[in-house]
Amino acid sequence: MPKIKAINHVAVVVDDMDKSLHFWRDALGMDLHELRDVPAEKSQIAFLPLAGAEVELVMPTSDDSGIAKYLAKRGPGMHHICLEVDDIEGMMSVLKEKNIRLINEEPRTAVDGKKYAFVHPESTGGVLVELYQL
Amino acid sequence: MPKIKAINHVAVVVDDMDKSLHFWRDALGMDLHELRDVPAEKSQIAFLPLAGAEVELVMPTSDDSGIAKYLAKRGPGMHHICLEVDDIEGMMSVLKEKNIRLINEEPRTAVDGKKYAFVHPESTGGVLVELYQL
Repeated sequence: MPKIKAINHVAVVVDDMDKSLHFWRDALGMDLHELRDVPAEKSQIAFLPLAGAEVELVMPTSDDSGIAKYLAKRGPGMHHICLEVDDIEGMMSVLKEKNIRLINEEPRTAVDGKKYAFVHPESTGGVLVELYQL
Repeated sequence: MPKIKAINHVAVVVDDMDKSLHFWRDALGMDLHELRDVPAEKSQIAFLPLAGAEVELVMPTSDDSGIAKYLAKRGPGMHHICLEVDDIEGMMSVLKEKNIRLINEEPRTAVDGKKYAFVHPESTGGVLVELYQL
């Protein structure tokens, strides 16, 4: 059976990166591992690792991205939780059998080779869930 | 300096516990450690531990609780992220120095002796953050 191994990261959509980093980095003292522009997602992302997991702060850099629309509609706040899974194909088969609504019917592959897929909030209790295999 | 040690848990407000458990427990295969009625918070909480962290599903059991009002206003979804800190009093002094807006000016003590306090979303980038000392 495929297994969920850990919380990999929690992603927060922010509208003001400097103000957000004032809290997460300067006040909480968390390590800002990287502040990366991600043109493919029209976003700037701050990565703050924490004991095997990570907090990610995501700020849209363009008004026409999915993340910008999310921000405009819902305001800043939690965007998704990412769970590490040992066998993403196996897990997605199980989810389909259980009639869980998926956003990605098949895993997608990122530039770094990791596989991921999103589960629709309708099936999770209202939260966007990303599955991720290293 | 006080330090953030780990993500302790992520709490999700749900309006249908059975449907939510169908995803988290039955489909993802996560262990339901406990399904607890918490009269003090007028809630039922499902605890699903995961490699030192935890996913908590919180369902209001009364219409007049804070969590019920949150659900009515925002719909189901992520409620807060809880970070473990080694020295909560020290951390709260730092946060005050940095003009971070707190919901609890002083740590509160739970029945089990753990200390906790909430930081206002206004200062965090939009997400309710709980600090927690074991």
